[in-house]
Amino acid sequence: MQSAKPKVLQTLAGKSLLAHVLDTCHQLTVDETIIVHGFGGEQVQSEITDQYAQSSITWVAQTEQLGTGHAVKVTLSDLPKEGQSLILYGDVPLVSCQTLAALKTANTDGMSMLTLTVDNPFGLGRIKRDQAGNITAIVEQKDANTDEQSIKEINSGIYCVDNALLHKYLPELSNDNAQQEYYLTDIVKMAVADGITIAAIEPEHTFEIEGVNNRQQLASLERTWQGKLVADLQEAGVQFADPTRVDIRGTLTAGQDVFIDVNVVFEGDCTLGDNVYIEAGCVIKSTSIGNACHLKPYCVIDQTQIEAGVTIGPFVNLRPDTRLASNSRIGNFVEIKKSTIGHGSKVNHLSYIGDAIIGTDVNVGAGVITCNYDGVNKSQTIIKDNAFIGSNASLVAPVTIGDTANVAAGSVITKNVDDKALAFGRARQTQKENFQRPIKK
Amino acid sequence: MQSAKPKVLQTLAGKSLLAHVLDTCHQLTVDETIIVHGFGGEQVQSEITDQYAQSSITWVAQTEQLGTGHAVKVTLSDLPKEGQSLILYGDVPLVSCQTLAALKTANTDGMSMLTLTVDNPFGLGRIKRDQAGNITAIVEQKDANTDEQSIKEINSGIYCVDNALLHKYLPELSNDNAQQEYYLTDIVKMAVADGITIAAIEPEHTFEIEGVNNRQQLASLERTWQGKLVADLQEAGVQFADPTRVDIRGTLTAGQDVFIDVNVVFEGDCTLGDNVYIEAGCVIKSTSIGNACHLKPYCVIDQTQIEAGVTIGPFVNLRPDTRLASNSRIGNFVEIKKSTIGHGSKVNHLSYIGDAIIGTDVNVGAGVITCNYDGVNKSQTIIKDNAFIGSNASLVAPVTIGDTANVAAGSVITKNVDDKALAFGRARQTQKENFQRPIKK
Amino acid sequence: MQSAKPKVLQTLAGKSLLAHVLDTCHQLTVDETIIVHGFGGEQVQSEITDQYAQSSITWVAQTEQLGTGHAVKVTLSDLPKEGQSLILYGDVPLVSCQTLAALKTANTDGMSMLTLTVDNPFGLGRIKRDQAGNITAIVEQKDANTDEQSIKEINSGIYCVDNALLHKYLPELSNDNAQQEYYLTDIVKMAVADGITIAAIEPEHTFEIEGVNNRQQLASLERTWQGKLVADLQEAGVQFADPTRVDIRGTLTAGQDVFIDVNVVFEGDCTLGDNVYIEAGCVIKSTSIGNACHLKPYCVIDQTQIEAGVTIGPFVNLRPDTRLASNSRIGNFVEIKKSTIGHGSKVNHLSYIGDAIIGTDVNVGAGVITCNYDGVNKSQTIIKDNAFIGSNASLVAPVTIGDTANVAAGSVITKNVDDKALAFGRARQTQKENFQRPIKK
Repeated sequence: MQSAKPKVLQTLAGKSLLAHVLDTCHQLTVDETIIVHGFGGEQVQSEITDQYAQSSITWVAQTEQLGTGHAVKVTLSDLPKEGQSLILYGDVPLVSCQTLAALKTANTDGMSMLTLTVDNPFGLGRIKRDQAGNITAIVEQKDANTDEQSIKEINSGIYCVDNALLHKYLPELSNDNAQQEYYLTDIVKMAVADGITIAAIEPEHTFEIEGVNNRQQLASLERTWQGKLVADLQEAGVQFADPTRVDIRGTLTAGQDVFIDVNVVFEGDCTLGDNVYIEAGCVIKSTSIGNACHLKPYCVIDQTQIEAGVTIGPFVNLRPDTRLASNSRIGNFVEIKKSTIGHGSKVNHLSYIGDAIIGTDVNVGAGVITCNYDGVNKSQTIIKDNAFIGSNASLVAPVTIGDTANVAAGSVITKNVDDKALAFGRARQTQKENFQRPIKK
Repeated sequence: MQSAKPKVLQTLAGKSLLAHVLDTCHQLTVDETIIVHGFGGEQVQSEITDQYAQSSITWVAQTEQLGTGHAVKVTLSDLPKEGQSLILYGDVPLVSCQTLAALKTANTDGMSMLTLTVDNPFGLGRIKRDQAGNITAIVEQKDANTDEQSIKEINSGIYCVDNALLHKYLPELSNDNAQQEYYLTDIVKMAVADGITIAAIEPEHTFEIEGVNNRQQLASLERTWQGKLVADLQEAGVQFADPTRVDIRGTLTAGQDVFIDVNVVFEGDCTLGDNVYIEAGCVIKSTSIGNACHLKPYCVIDQTQIEAGVTIGPFVNLRPDTRLASNSRIGNFVEIKKSTIGHGSKVNHLSYIGDAIIGTDVNVGAGVITCNYDGVNKSQTIIKDNAFIGSNASLVAPVTIGDTANVAAGSVITKNVDDKALAFGRARQTQKENFQRPIKK
Repeated sequence: MQSAKPKVLQTLAGKSLLAHVLDTCHQLTVDETIIVHGFGGEQVQSEITDQYAQSSITWVAQTEQLGTGHAVKVTLSDLPKEGQSLILYGDVPLVSCQTLAALKTANTDGMSMLTLTVDNPFGLGRIKRDQAGNITAIVEQKDANTDEQSIKEINSGIYCVDNALLHKYLPELSNDNAQQEYYLTDIVKMAVADGITIAAIEPEHTFEIEGVNNRQQLASLERTWQGKLVADLQEAGVQFADPTRVDIRGTLTAGQDVFIDVNVVFEGDCTLGDNVYIEAGCVIKSTSIGNACHLKPYCVIDQTQIEAGVTIGPFVNLRPDTRLASNSRIGNFVEIKKSTIGHGSKVNHLSYIGDAIIGTDVNVGAGVITCNYDGVNKSQTIIKDNAFIGSNASLVAPVTIGDTANVAAGSVITKNVDDKALAFGRARQTQKENFQRPIKK
């Protein structure tokens, strides 16, 4: 990885590999999570603890790296005697909830494992079965004879095992082998020796068992995952201009007949209503967008609530805690932060609106700026219904512009404006005839 | 499709599937068009009638869905007795004019059909031929014996048939089969029985006979089509930084040595001169761009006429009815709407120019705004040749700035400015010493 | 190519094909370069001479196009009698320095050539070897018998030859063949006849010997090259959201744990520190970016020096000769040109800063503009440490704002402001009650 960060903290679809696994576990309503960590564990623990403050996670350090079996073995003192355990990997991020649920349910005789039938099994542990189809052993590549090498069912390393069996088998693991490592796969041998039938589940998608060992694999898995998310949305009725040019980093819920143009990026949890039309290059984070909204190219939106029938862009930056009421219109080169824009109101050009409450049917002219910051404090601007703010006006907060009030273009407004009044604060226009222009120095 | 819209109204390259087929027909100067519609036909009829108001289209409702033969049969009362008919599909959008012209011309004996030789014909109707190579039948997958299954020439469903034959055969179609449907392919059988030689034409491109049944297929056909448009332009002398990252939704005509960087989107009819250089992410709609223009990244342009040698961007929004004369320069964060910018004039930063006529060699400073809207009316701003408009000025329309006139920075101009004059409207600068700054609340 | 430009001046990764070859030669510290040119040579010579003013390049016109052997032969009068020559092609741009170094070193017996083993050699000259593995001949496709056609080692046309051998063999080349051309490959025959052992080197990458004959091939080679550059950076520790959606046109040096989101374009020589986070669609040219900087979406940056911990964007245009000191913050819709922004200072919204020197911990309000241009001259704005510039202020240069000074919102500042003072230049706010709004005309 060539990274200062532990591998399991590398991100895929905007979330660390380990968080993917933990989120899947939490969807399964796993009772307790034990994370085994090696070097760099403090960094993992610190980041994960921040994110999963409410979860019950037990951290176990594996101070020596003595193999997969050893990694599970070090959890024994924290492992309940009853119930069953899913054995997962922090660098195999995309195993699905459905697959793990099947693995748990299949676990009738105490042990189940996730296997996959692949075209090219070279290098991977093969699943040996007897004539009845029961799993008898896992054979590693280097130990496989010609017949065994032709087996195409491979071991994913993911198991669901009764805790009683883990407490029985793990202490018996031996490192009496070439690598002097404790192999987790040996528990399969032990179970077979005990006459236990091992269930095998195949995941729906190959990517569910793919691990990440370098940045190329990480990028490849990212694209596979994006393809999956897009295909699911296509089936739900979303039209993508190019399914390979969209990124969804979090959850995207979309209504019917949504159009998403090229190079749109979603982050966090986003919701789109029906008939939403999103043009090229929008970057949308943790935002809900109502029915029939139209986002023109290059809208950057974060933590905003957008009601139905709103038109935005191009080139808009909506920052957190913004609410755009229905049928409002936000035009080009406009930034809005921590503000509400009322129904039918327009902020069409080159404005900064911060800490403001704008009523319905207000027209904010081009270049209008709410001066919400005096260097130390932020203050609020209130613009009431039906007001008209002339271009290039500066509204020095705290200030209130009354209902149906007017502000003349270019005015600096420092005092409240009464309902229906026209406020202005600008000098009279004068003229020098035949002005001598500056001369080139 | 999971859509509230009928399938034939889904869009590919910015145009409904049905409109693709109709446009191809119109290029062929088809005399008359009969559209058979099923459920949702009103929506189709309404949208298509709006777009093709000048065309002669007869709408025929197929109230029961009794097969392809039935769909054509319901047109009989509207079908002329003479001439020939192309039988096309609203969800097979990309059949080319050249292919259909060949199909019409090939039609010497009264019937021709579009077939295709494919590697994997599974599931498709096979074209049976006798030893002389004459078409003898179409065999469906479920009826094909082993020999027939190995046939790789398949039926596209697209025909060109003499109307007399249609009037003869369609009433004879039977639904005496497992599906109880009237099959259009039966007319081939009837023609063969009548000793008619059926011509077969193969399209140049596979995509010409590809239909759309879900959003994945729609997206796939979109990308194939984009690849075709790009390849044609490459042959004509256009350099694309990445042929897979460009979208052309309409027609793009380009001169020699044009460079188009990644993620540019074209919509409508666009024309580019020689040596046009378009940087990343521009979105260009229904616009003509003259020789040697340079568009920097992220220009959004709609219905604009751009003469030669113009430099634009980055981050520009040109709205409809804008004309940029030769060698003008539009810089960043500038919006222009319904305006003319004269030869050599510059609007370089953070401006809104609306409803304005700007002469030659004018310099519009940063942050200048034309206040063209008083809340109910739009008014015009005229800036004559060689004028200099200082930064942050507001020009309250209607207003005229004279030839070689000057406007001081920060002025609000409400009255006309004389030629060569300097207008200003701003307060004198004053100063409070040792100002006590606000204190953190 | 359908171009007014000679093929070798077409660009790949932002640089002409010929310049790629020349740059590789210069990395090898080649003593002297002879360029053989045909028609259009003046244009090539003019462009290349501009770029490589310091290099010793001899230009030789090949007035008749009589084959590859002839092209090399015309250099004889300029070719030293001693040393060795690399024979390269202006339209084979990506041969690597490593490969050419190996070719030079391998050249123990006077001649070495670059060959490649490919799956599909059809159409290419095959390398014949004797049983000892020594090269005996090059057989062209049209002359190859069945055995020879199955040879998969092909001739790249790239050689390294002792100059003495070139002076001996080239005058002996004959055009006594079907095409009446002088073939360079004949020197292999001659060398074999003289008992010279010819070394063969295979390049690491296939693309190194790929030539460009049309725009499709050019685009394909561009994407292959981009893939290579990205893979190298991935190995060095850079995370790309999508390895197929990034463009590097020049050199990119990056630290550890850099994240590069989709559709970022780099041009010229760029350097990124550790933990730099670059969001979607940034276009970065000839710029260095320090550790832990964060570029939000759509930053366009040219020739800027950015120190550590700086946050920029979205929608920023940084123009040449800009320096952003550590921990400064540049927000949306801001343009900066030829200016320095001091440590911790903020220019957050809708500003144009040109020809300015801004100290540390300055706050520049929204919509502030430096009026640096009077129509003929550019002047400087100086803002000293800790100053606060109110929104929509215009600073008419030359002007100095003192340390801890303040400028009121909406002011036009034409005279220097003293340290700690508050300057304002704006009219008092007045109000007309019950203003009668304009009526719709």
